[in-house]
Amino acid sequence: MKRYGILNPALSRALARMGHTDAIVICDAGLPIPDGPERIDLSLLPGVPSFQDVLAAIMAELQIERVQIATEFVEHSRKLHDETISRMDAHTEVQGAPIVIERISHEDLKHATRNARAIVRTGECTPFANVILYSGVPF
Amino acid sequence: MKRYGILNPALSRALARMGHTDAIVICDAGLPIPDGPERIDLSLLPGVPSFQDVLAAIMAELQIERVQIATEFVEHSRKLHDETISRMDAHTEVQGAPIVIERISHEDLKHATRNARAIVRTGECTPFANVILYSGVPF
Amino acid sequence: MKRYGILNPALSRALARMGHTDAIVICDAGLPIPDGPERIDLSLLPGVPSFQDVLAAIMAELQIERVQIATEFVEHSRKLHDETISRMDAHTEVQGAPIVIERISHEDLKHATRNARAIVRTGECTPFANVILYSGVPF
Amino acid sequence: MKRYGILNPALSRALARMGHTDAIVICDAGLPIPDGPERIDLSLLPGVPSFQDVLAAIMAELQIERVQIATEFVEHSRKLHDETISRMDAHTEVQGAPIVIERISHEDLKHATRNARAIVRTGECTPFANVILYSGVPF
Amino acid sequence: MKRYGILNPALSRALARMGHTDAIVICDAGLPIPDGPERIDLSLLPGVPSFQDVLAAIMAELQIERVQIATEFVEHSRKLHDETISRMDAHTEVQGAPIVIERISHEDLKHATRNARAIVRTGECTPFANVILYSGVPF
Amino acid sequence: MKRYGILNPALSRALARMGHTDAIVICDAGLPIPDGPERIDLSLLPGVPSFQDVLAAIMAELQIERVQIATEFVEHSRKLHDETISRMDAHTEVQGAPIVIERISHEDLKHATRNARAIVRTGECTPFANVILYSGVPF
Amino acid sequence: MKRYGILNPALSRALARMGHTDAIVICDAGLPIPDGPERIDLSLLPGVPSFQDVLAAIMAELQIERVQIATEFVEHSRKLHDETISRMDAHTEVQGAPIVIERISHEDLKHATRNARAIVRTGECTPFANVILYSGVPF
Amino acid sequence: MKRYGILNPALSRALARMGHTDAIVICDAGLPIPDGPERIDLSLLPGVPSFQDVLAAIMAELQIERVQIATEFVEHSRKLHDETISRMDAHTEVQGAPIVIERISHEDLKHATRNARAIVRTGECTPFANVILYSGVPF
Amino acid sequence: MKRYGILNPALSRALARMGHTDAIVICDAGLPIPDGPERIDLSLLPGVPSFQDVLAAIMAELQIERVQIATEFVEHSRKLHDETISRMDAHTEVQGAPIVIERISHEDLKHATRNARAIVRTGECTPFANVILYSGVPF
Amino acid sequence: MKRYGILNPALSRALARMGHTDAIVICDAGLPIPDGPERIDLSLLPGVPSFQDVLAAIMAELQIERVQIATEFVEHSRKLHDETISRMDAHTEVQGAPIVIERISHEDLKHATRNARAIVRTGECTPFANVILYSGVPF
Repeated sequence: MKRYGILNPALSRALARMGHTDAIVICDAGLPIPDGPERIDLSLLPGVPSFQDVLAAIMAELQIERVQIATEFVEHSRKLHDETISRMDAHTEVQGAPIVIERISHEDLKHATRNARAIVRTGECTPFANVILYSGVPF
Repeated sequence: MKRYGILNPALSRALARMGHTDAIVICDAGLPIPDGPERIDLSLLPGVPSFQDVLAAIMAELQIERVQIATEFVEHSRKLHDETISRMDAHTEVQGAPIVIERISHEDLKHATRNARAIVRTGECTPFANVILYSGVPF
Repeated sequence: MKRYGILNPALSRALARMGHTDAIVICDAGLPIPDGPERIDLSLLPGVPSFQDVLAAIMAELQIERVQIATEFVEHSRKLHDETISRMDAHTEVQGAPIVIERISHEDLKHATRNARAIVRTGECTPFANVILYSGVPF
Repeated sequence: MKRYGILNPALSRALARMGHTDAIVICDAGLPIPDGPERIDLSLLPGVPSFQDVLAAIMAELQIERVQIATEFVEHSRKLHDETISRMDAHTEVQGAPIVIERISHEDLKHATRNARAIVRTGECTPFANVILYSGVPF
Repeated sequence: MKRYGILNPALSRALARMGHTDAIVICDAGLPIPDGPERIDLSLLPGVPSFQDVLAAIMAELQIERVQIATEFVEHSRKLHDETISRMDAHTEVQGAPIVIERISHEDLKHATRNARAIVRTGECTPFANVILYSGVPF
Repeated sequence: MKRYGILNPALSRALARMGHTDAIVICDAGLPIPDGPERIDLSLLPGVPSFQDVLAAIMAELQIERVQIATEFVEHSRKLHDETISRMDAHTEVQGAPIVIERISHEDLKHATRNARAIVRTGECTPFANVILYSGVPF
Repeated sequence: MKRYGILNPALSRALARMGHTDAIVICDAGLPIPDGPERIDLSLLPGVPSFQDVLAAIMAELQIERVQIATEFVEHSRKLHDETISRMDAHTEVQGAPIVIERISHEDLKHATRNARAIVRTGECTPFANVILYSGVPF
Repeated sequence: MKRYGILNPALSRALARMGHTDAIVICDAGLPIPDGPERIDLSLLPGVPSFQDVLAAIMAELQIERVQIATEFVEHSRKLHDETISRMDAHTEVQGAPIVIERISHEDLKHATRNARAIVRTGECTPFANVILYSGVPF
Repeated sequence: MKRYGILNPALSRALARMGHTDAIVICDAGLPIPDGPERIDLSLLPGVPSFQDVLAAIMAELQIERVQIATEFVEHSRKLHDETISRMDAHTEVQGAPIVIERISHEDLKHATRNARAIVRTGECTPFANVILYSGVPF
Repeated sequence: MKRYGILNPALSRALARMGHTDAIVICDAGLPIPDGPERIDLSLLPGVPSFQDVLAAIMAELQIERVQIATEFVEHSRKLHDETISRMDAHTEVQGAPIVIERISHEDLKHATRNARAIVRTGECTPFANVILYSGVPF
């Protein structure tokens, strides 16, 4: 088996297919998932796996240029939101390139998920715990 | 979304298809998964999700008649093994019917996975953390 | 096999895929079913299974936020309509959240079925016995 | 829609494909269903639909030459067994040809299901409520 | 095999899927068949099977509410047209509900076939021997 | 459309794929059709289309070297059998090459259908009206 | 195998599917082939098979009502163009019905190929050797 | 389009997939083609394309180590056989490596086609004009 | 195996399918690849295979009429850009026909990739190393 | 896009699916590739990509327990063989676990490839440059 990193075959493949500006969504267990994007459903039970675990796994492999989160996220779930932002900050150092954070309405975010290449569903049951990651390139 | 229980669509479907004596495997991240059974790959990162989380989720819905575990499990990973056995004991009460526990060699267990209906891969990185559950019926 | 709840694999999977605002339709044997939504055809004979049996099964697992029924339903089939409304009332208690009931024309209801994720066909032969359930989230 | 008879599309198609000596299985909710035969899963909830409803629907369209039931059926579930036999007796009149009833062990019956063209799963939760119908021809 | 009625598996399935207002087309051997509707091609040789045989088979199972035929049908092929109308008249008695007959241009009829659920091609070689049947419901 | 000959697309394709010694089966409505060979189901109603119509259509295009029919055919359905033999005799002239006629048991014929490339089901309801045609080459 | 006529299975099937006004394209090796129409690629090497061989084969089976060719065809490849027209003239006699020949620009012809049912690619390497055949009916 | 060489997409792909000892068959229009190998059916009409054209096209791209032909080939169709052998002789020079020619019975050759990776059907109507090419490697 | 030229089966097939004006894209590892065109992903590691290796391979087989590159290419990666242009110049001699080079914005180039027949992803990690090749014909 | 490591989606997925004792083959351009294992064909031109590049990429992610190479490898291509062995030695340090190297005949190696999960084809044109890697687990 692999010696480290993401173990999931579908997620490994999806990340290897990402190009500049392509989007991947990490969502809580309740976000409606439109037809079109590949659905990678990792949800097991409420809370398993967590939003943070999935975010950490993807960040370890992906170059990220831009991020969209809902303004409702910070309003309703400040703790998870703040942890997410901290993670983004730390990631800019790791990847040697900044991440633009865009705050949009939850409605707009749901609309934007239609153009993602993949949507990764977690078991997270925290309101508005959704993020859209737009890929950068490391060269 | 569902109000409780298993959130994963592939796993929900697999459990709803189980009949008397049908087998489902829960395995660590390293077990070789043969062609034939449906592969439900929930693995994310080493340790996520855990063997125990997946086992708990499935037990909450499935009637279990018989279980196969490797003798190597207790020898190499006693803590997780013992927790697993305790969970089985508790489950007999919940389902109102006993569970036969069969101890076989790891080689035989690998061979037996070929006849399972589904194999659920976890991120567990504990040696020999694999179990085959054989379905009973609640009537 | 499963110890309780919905036994049908396709229906179990469809419910596990539902997200916030996603729709699932329960219909009588005569409603035209558009392409697009998944068709889960449980119909056997006129009256089997009944609209109420299918509704009860789905309600037992799904968080419901909003419901659409045709105004023709109450006019032509009051008894089944009233039972349906009663069931909705009872469900608000069970799920700890209100259900908005929207009355629309049968034409509009047929149009709205196109956006559902799944349509479950029953054997019910009562005029206008159709309902669209819009999913909520339990967190 | 159809004016009478079986409403289910998959079951209608399966019956129209039956030739002389082809087998179709009607089973309770717990019978293990092998790969190979088409699975027509009508199960909804425990008891819905009933074994008798499905049997009646199929008998109304199919010419039957031979039937296999488990000896365990009469031993454990005499009431349903006797109703089934009565239905067979009545059917011989309707179709103008006798039905041979073969009693075999439950193990042999499970083995024989592998060669069926289709297996129709009901929600019946009565032990050993399974039957294999072998098609005749009406000419 | 089935004791009576339609023997064709694809046609049996298509009829069992029909809902209120769904359309099925019966056409001669020359009508262009658009992509989209299911194509059930029963044609063998010129004249086999006939338009009338296929129409009779479908009428025996389907509730019909409305019919579209081309005005060119009566002009160019009066004999077959009149037989078709007679059959419709007789059918209203059998099904206990009237059939609305709409006469449209052949061009409009060809356009309307795009929205049918299925198109059944016969071997009929009589000009304009085409009909669109719109399903009713028997309750 | 085609100016003459077989109108059916699946049958046209199947005949164009035939090579030396490949088999195609024409069967009555009741013969069990094994998995493996392509099923071309032209059956509509009892008697439609007839065995003779399908046989005539195929003979008009296929070079035939050998034919298998069941001894039960002549015993139970002499009239149709004799017409079939006459047709074979006439065909030897048309194709300029003899046809070997093999009489085997109905059981052996059913077994031999498993190796056919295609099986064409008619609506014929005459006992044992089945034939296996083995292709020759016209050069 | 077949005693005469078109040997190619895909082409046989495509011709058997043609209805009134349906189009089939015969093209040289360089025409861009849009998605949508079935691609029947018979090309082997430059010049093999020739445009004329494929045209002759299709004309032998198809009723043709209308033909589109590019004005560039006669300008750049007069010899092949004139042979093609001669073949059309001869064909009107064979099929007992006239063929309308439409001359359009190469651009318009390329656009029109999108609506064809099938496109047959030859190995012809003669500029503008493309034709769209619109099917008639022989009754 | 390609500037030279094989124009056929399926054949180009098949040759690019060949490895050491893999077999590709070139056959006349009458050879039975077993399931399993990819069927590349280039046949159009009797004689088109010819065995020699297809053989020349494939030889221009493939390294060949061994060839199987039927002894019946030389006995019944000496002219085409001798041309084929001459072509092989010339090819050894081109590819800088010898070709072993194996003569086997037509029955054995038909059996051996089952293990080929692809079978290319020509329109050749010369008896026993079949050859199996076993790939070498150019390094 | 093949004696020379492109070894990749998917790429061989894609080139053999190209017609006049059809486009194929060669891209660096970071270009977003839209749905629609066939994705031929040859990327292994950063830099493997190189843009130049893939370009050379395709040029050796394809007739090229027109090329689109981004103006950003020359600005950011002049060395690779100039090598690419040199290769184009040399190619005009080889194919005996000129190549029109169009410089467009990177945004327009990304938009234009949607209409390509195939997109070949390399491992190149040089900014803006992307090119769209439009096919000509060699006759 | 990914920040480092393997860029190829199919290869990323294949590695993420590997379990203990599962095999993956890296082969030169000429090895015959059996049906069954997933074919990941990275070959472009002779020599591109190289055996070493592919081996290095896979080793960077995979835990390796055992390796099979042909004795003919060292005999015919000592330089590449020795580099391969050196790479294995270095890898034991990186992964903290030994690698067993098994030398078998080329015939046996070809036979063993049938049981691999995936076969990665390179463009390497060095005789016998093939290796089977058997996966270990890092825990």
